[in-house]
Amino acid sequence: MRTLFAVSATALALMSGPVAASQTANIFNSNITEQEVFNAQQGWCSALVSISEANMKGGQAQAKQVAEQVIDSAYAYDNGGVLFKPTLTVAPQTFRSTRRGALAYFVGGDSSFPNDSGFALGDWTKCDVITDGVLLMGNTAISMGQVTVTNKQGQSTTVDKTWGWMKDSQGNLRIVLHHSSLEHMAK
Amino acid sequence: MRTLFAVSATALALMSGPVAASQTANIFNSNITEQEVFNAQQGWCSALVSISEANMKGGQAQAKQVAEQVIDSAYAYDNGGVLFKPTLTVAPQTFRSTRRGALAYFVGGDSSFPNDSGFALGDWTKCDVITDGVLLMGNTAISMGQVTVTNKQGQSTTVDKTWGWMKDSQGNLRIVLHHSSLEHMAK
Amino acid sequence: MRTLFAVSATALALMSGPVAASQTANIFNSNITEQEVFNAQQGWCSALVSISEANMKGGQAQAKQVAEQVIDSAYAYDNGGVLFKPTLTVAPQTFRSTRRGALAYFVGGDSSFPNDSGFALGDWTKCDVITDGVLLMGNTAISMGQVTVTNKQGQSTTVDKTWGWMKDSQGNLRIVLHHSSLEHMAK
Amino acid sequence: MRTLFAVSATALALMSGPVAASQTANIFNSNITEQEVFNAQQGWCSALVSISEANMKGGQAQAKQVAEQVIDSAYAYDNGGVLFKPTLTVAPQTFRSTRRGALAYFVGGDSSFPNDSGFALGDWTKCDVITDGVLLMGNTAISMGQVTVTNKQGQSTTVDKTWGWMKDSQGNLRIVLHHSSLEHMAK
Repeated sequence: MRTLFAVSATALALMSGPVAASQTANIFNSNITEQEVFNAQQGWCSALVSISEANMKGGQAQAKQVAEQVIDSAYAYDNGGVLFKPTLTVAPQTFRSTRRGALAYFVGGDSSFPNDSGFALGDWTKCDVITDGVLLMGNTAISMGQVTVTNKQGQSTTVDKTWGWMKDSQGNLRIVLHHSSLEHMAK
Repeated sequence: MRTLFAVSATALALMSGPVAASQTANIFNSNITEQEVFNAQQGWCSALVSISEANMKGGQAQAKQVAEQVIDSAYAYDNGGVLFKPTLTVAPQTFRSTRRGALAYFVGGDSSFPNDSGFALGDWTKCDVITDGVLLMGNTAISMGQVTVTNKQGQSTTVDKTWGWMKDSQGNLRIVLHHSSLEHMAK
Repeated sequence: MRTLFAVSATALALMSGPVAASQTANIFNSNITEQEVFNAQQGWCSALVSISEANMKGGQAQAKQVAEQVIDSAYAYDNGGVLFKPTLTVAPQTFRSTRRGALAYFVGGDSSFPNDSGFALGDWTKCDVITDGVLLMGNTAISMGQVTVTNKQGQSTTVDKTWGWMKDSQGNLRIVLHHSSLEHMAK
Repeated sequence: MRTLFAVSATALALMSGPVAASQTANIFNSNITEQEVFNAQQGWCSALVSISEANMKGGQAQAKQVAEQVIDSAYAYDNGGVLFKPTLTVAPQTFRSTRRGALAYFVGGDSSFPNDSGFALGDWTKCDVITDGVLLMGNTAISMGQVTVTNKQGQSTTVDKTWGWMKDSQGNLRIVLHHSSLEHMAK
């Protein structure tokens, strides 16, 4: 018996060669790309420096104003919620699931968060990201790596950082997860 | 008051210029691409013709064997479930949520589905897709368009078709939704 | 050799008994539920009848006004795009990827869509859904079934229908996919 | 002008009251639930204690065997990739994107990872999770909280932990993200 007609049990994508994309099809794509994640990471760095510069030029009040803009444009507190473990928070206020808790962490000055001195007030002038890996999962993504911030005296601090991202209804990435921790040092 | 330091409330992705992708980052990407959808659509067409060719060469038994390979490799009956409304089914067996119901539709010969004569036994030698639109949503996608099948006598039938796709654990696209209907004709 | 300490290679979820949900955890859930799909399907039916009632009471102009409200609140033309194959459209205007094309289908009166007489002007007073199946996939879902519309004379039409849904930023379901087709009749 | 017929521009879900779920619809649901996340978190804890118990009873070789079972059943190294920042790793081997790097962290004994002494060999007899928050996003989820491990001498260590989860093709949760860090201490 001839079996010329039998197809092997391969998947659909393998049953044909590449197909030219239709010129006329409408493509509606809500997926986050690798490049969008890299840009958003660097955007976070730029935002941190912006808050710091605002403080150096105009003091805490100005820094707070910029920080509010950053939080409102870059975090998802109004878009479903945020899981946030900042670098330097301590129990029992380790996690900051509210906008107010995030703002206190960045610029301090909130008596409800007495241990917060304002991380973004550290005279940071430079912020660099080295990405270890990215998970792309449709309109959400996760990235992990190291961020090094440098202040105007040239002193640097490196943290291990994980960000989770979502694409909002305007197509911008927003942070839904932020876990930052000081590097562990070998004994 | 100076406002030099103020950032506008733009989103993170806009706060910086494009960032060069890290050379070393691990990128784990489960998203379906437009090209994968186009390939899978054409793969479905090729599979239909394969079943038909098997029938022409080896009869219904051979066609059934090929159809089983197609269903097992291209539909998601074992990967979470399938919503299937074939072109020519009639109530009360319009929808085929089981592998057996899909097989009966393609090659007939199942007394439990007495109205099924076997769509894929129609001596189809050609199958073309014109895509109207594609929705890309992470590891799932939806595509809609028209499919024209042509038999060995050169007679064609055009159907309106919607497919839903998922990417399985081997990275292959599988059909989770299939709604096919004859073109409506103007009176 | 004793193996008392060995765990079998079961998945994490099986390694422990059920765990009481933390009382204090913040749960951020963007998933669509089965019940939301059933409600949205019935909502579409109610919306169709509303357009029809507007026409019966106030004529096409009123129906058009209601139809615009329905499209803007229930379809995703402004939320990423819609794949729409209405029941009675004909080539080359089978698919309606624009708001205008959808509006023309529902209430007619648009010279750019000369074959559209306005499906929703059919004096529909009743609309029922029988669901065959639902795919729940995070903030998107697909449902398939039959919809029967009945007019004021008591005449009914049944169509096979697939809807794709997304949850928008306000938490409401919107239609991203709509494939409707007249029942195929056995010869 | 009468407006009795006008519907307000509410979303579909609000246009009708609750609808009884169809008795017969097939529901295909790939979403992760809150309970599954809580169970998987506790499963991770149980797995850690299992490795530790294996070591106490059978030494490193036995612990390694159990750790391999744990990694293969609970992490997604073979299911698309894992982003892993363990608690005690140091640069330049901070991140463990390979199964081998994860194994070295848990049980040590790999000369390619000379700083790894084997976290799971710490005579842990108890492991508890307090969840701060959970993001449910279809077949992926993220959870954040604190994990306290206690050894046989009764000494405890608390870490801040973020897990990312995916549901695999068998319906089990697997870890795609794991960022763990020692609590920051106030000066």
